[in-house]
Amino acid sequence: MRLSDLPTPALLLDLDRLRRNAAFGLRRARELGVALRPHMKTTKSWQVAQLAIDPDFGGIAVSTLKEAEHFAEAGIADIQLALCMPPGRIDQALALAARIPRFSVFVDDLDMVDELVRRAAGARQPLGVWIEIDSGEHRTGVAPQGALLPELARRIAGAQGLRLSGVATHAGQSYDARSVEAVAAVAEDERRAVTAAAGRLRAEGLECHGVSAGSTPGLAHARSGAGLTEYRAGVYLLGDLFQAGLGSLDTDAIAVSVLTSVIARSEAPRRFMVDAGGLALSKDRGTAALPGHDRGYGVLCGLDDGAAASPADGALQVADVAQEHGFVPVPEAAPLPALGQRFRVLPNHACMTAAMYDRYVVHDGQTVLGTWPRINGWG
Amino acid sequence: MRLSDLPTPALLLDLDRLRRNAAFGLRRARELGVALRPHMKTTKSWQVAQLAIDPDFGGIAVSTLKEAEHFAEAGIADIQLALCMPPGRIDQALALAARIPRFSVFVDDLDMVDELVRRAAGARQPLGVWIEIDSGEHRTGVAPQGALLPELARRIAGAQGLRLSGVATHAGQSYDARSVEAVAAVAEDERRAVTAAAGRLRAEGLECHGVSAGSTPGLAHARSGAGLTEYRAGVYLLGDLFQAGLGSLDTDAIAVSVLTSVIARSEAPRRFMVDAGGLALSKDRGTAALPGHDRGYGVLCGLDDGAAASPADGALQVADVAQEHGFVPVPEAAPLPALGQRFRVLPNHACMTAAMYDRYVVHDGQTVLGTWPRINGWG
Repeated sequence: MRLSDLPTPALLLDLDRLRRNAAFGLRRARELGVALRPHMKTTKSWQVAQLAIDPDFGGIAVSTLKEAEHFAEAGIADIQLALCMPPGRIDQALALAARIPRFSVFVDDLDMVDELVRRAAGARQPLGVWIEIDSGEHRTGVAPQGALLPELARRIAGAQGLRLSGVATHAGQSYDARSVEAVAAVAEDERRAVTAAAGRLRAEGLECHGVSAGSTPGLAHARSGAGLTEYRAGVYLLGDLFQAGLGSLDTDAIAVSVLTSVIARSEAPRRFMVDAGGLALSKDRGTAALPGHDRGYGVLCGLDDGAAASPADGALQVADVAQEHGFVPVPEAAPLPALGQRFRVLPNHACMTAAMYDRYVVHDGQTVLGTWPRINGWG
Repeated sequence: MRLSDLPTPALLLDLDRLRRNAAFGLRRARELGVALRPHMKTTKSWQVAQLAIDPDFGGIAVSTLKEAEHFAEAGIADIQLALCMPPGRIDQALALAARIPRFSVFVDDLDMVDELVRRAAGARQPLGVWIEIDSGEHRTGVAPQGALLPELARRIAGAQGLRLSGVATHAGQSYDARSVEAVAAVAEDERRAVTAAAGRLRAEGLECHGVSAGSTPGLAHARSGAGLTEYRAGVYLLGDLFQAGLGSLDTDAIAVSVLTSVIARSEAPRRFMVDAGGLALSKDRGTAALPGHDRGYGVLCGLDDGAAASPADGALQVADVAQEHGFVPVPEAAPLPALGQRFRVLPNHACMTAAMYDRYVVHDGQTVLGTWPRINGWG
């Protein structure tokens, strides 16, 4: 089967680019001297995990317990829920901890730790607990210098059914950086915050084996991994126009796209409509925050060309969406396409666009190789 | 089971409100003197269709062929794909037309009509074809006064496997109206455009039985249905903060919400985080376009209270989202909630938020009645 035979819209995954992105991530982790823990929140696929896992390490991160259970089923032995433990899902987490060698969660709150201490007592196998450190995003996490950090660590280390996995952080403010230098500076702040936290715990005689940091911009541009044990990143596997705008990867590394067809044409205003609208692309407008890199709801490219595609090259963009329509303005000089003509749309934000689909159509050039399921939702 | 027992996040559907909204739609259609054709693009559920269908008419509209096939399976005999016929799915449409009494699609392009004429020849049962009229949104559709309209109609009427269902329009510009008067004026423009188109076809001796218009704002505020045979609307069944801001319905008619739990708290900045982020709420920011009605990514309410909830009442809002986090700022005077405390989030845009879930949890007050599946995606 060929891309031209598929029903549209469909979520495409370019296997060659995915493999190259996975290799890039591993190479960068090696340069930083850390293990790579691929974050599966973007791709949500066990086939992708198999390609992305660091062979010398074996771990992944996930964003939901549903993902964690799925990847456990697929045989992955080290799974980190890189999110503050959801209070209503403690039993579910303890059940998973009993099933695989290493399942771990994040905490940043004494009430949660006390609840875990109480509920995990008597567990067959300990639940790993990472103390989340706020390295400047101020989303979640405790201050690396505050009194809460050692208090949390002591309670976790002293509990019978818990294991202190270490300290972890995510400098999400890297998404607000607007240059490679700025991204590198955020990554360095992140590294300093989390290694300082680890140092404090060790100075108090507590074991702090794991020191976990990471984001896709940081993976691309961090200058040092000193003191870190592992790096988490997820979007780098697919890439998207936002990451390309940030400079994390090139547009021609973007491995995910939405296959779409022309369903209507209009002379005034001069534009055409594709069958990829708000549901097929998501309404993420992340690139609107990047000066000179606003890509509307996505950039169109041909079936066998994913290169350049910047507005300077005259690439068409999905300028607006309705639920099932994408609107593509066409310059006066350019012809309107035929009804049914196909394009691929490179997305603004891979995590959001991919989440609109329950599977990938995996392709090599124009040849369809098969479909890979995605684990969406929360269960 | 109670709402307090459910895993979060979850998509809730208030059965009592749904029923009242369905009755409101039917009452308004009666006032306008037209049949009601509920558009299932918002709710994508056969159980909702059963509650919403006009008992004197029986038809629905859908936005994908996957929905159409699902509702045909559920026994619905009149299904209109209210979207320009997707060129790659003609065989799928003809197969469905052979299976149920009335399946119909929209067209606005001669090339598509010629293709349908060719492919439908020899069909066991005709495919219904509505000519889409542009009533001012300039999205899709032909001008009601142009030469294309009668030409399309003649080719459809003369084809062996097609049936001219009539003319149809959607004045989506009602979403840009900012007062009840402005909505009513758009609905009147819509009615005039599509009835004028029907009149032209009849003047040429062509049968034009169906005259279809509609949107949720129009359903709420149109002053006349003269010359229309049917009205299509979908969002009115669930309601959302955007429609409440437009004045289509009251906030306390909103039947859909996202059940969420507090997963983290922060003193500086003073806020808490819930487990409903960009994936659980969607990234739709439609209310940002409504002066004085910007609701962030949604408004929080209690488990048994869905009323008022406007910023003037001090209601909390999800001000920002990450993939799995919603950020809720808290005023200095107000306490931070307990970890695990539950809220319901009323969404900006029901179509987008509901699409993030594969099912509804249907409830009556705090009692869970069961789950209803949703038909997402495109197949």
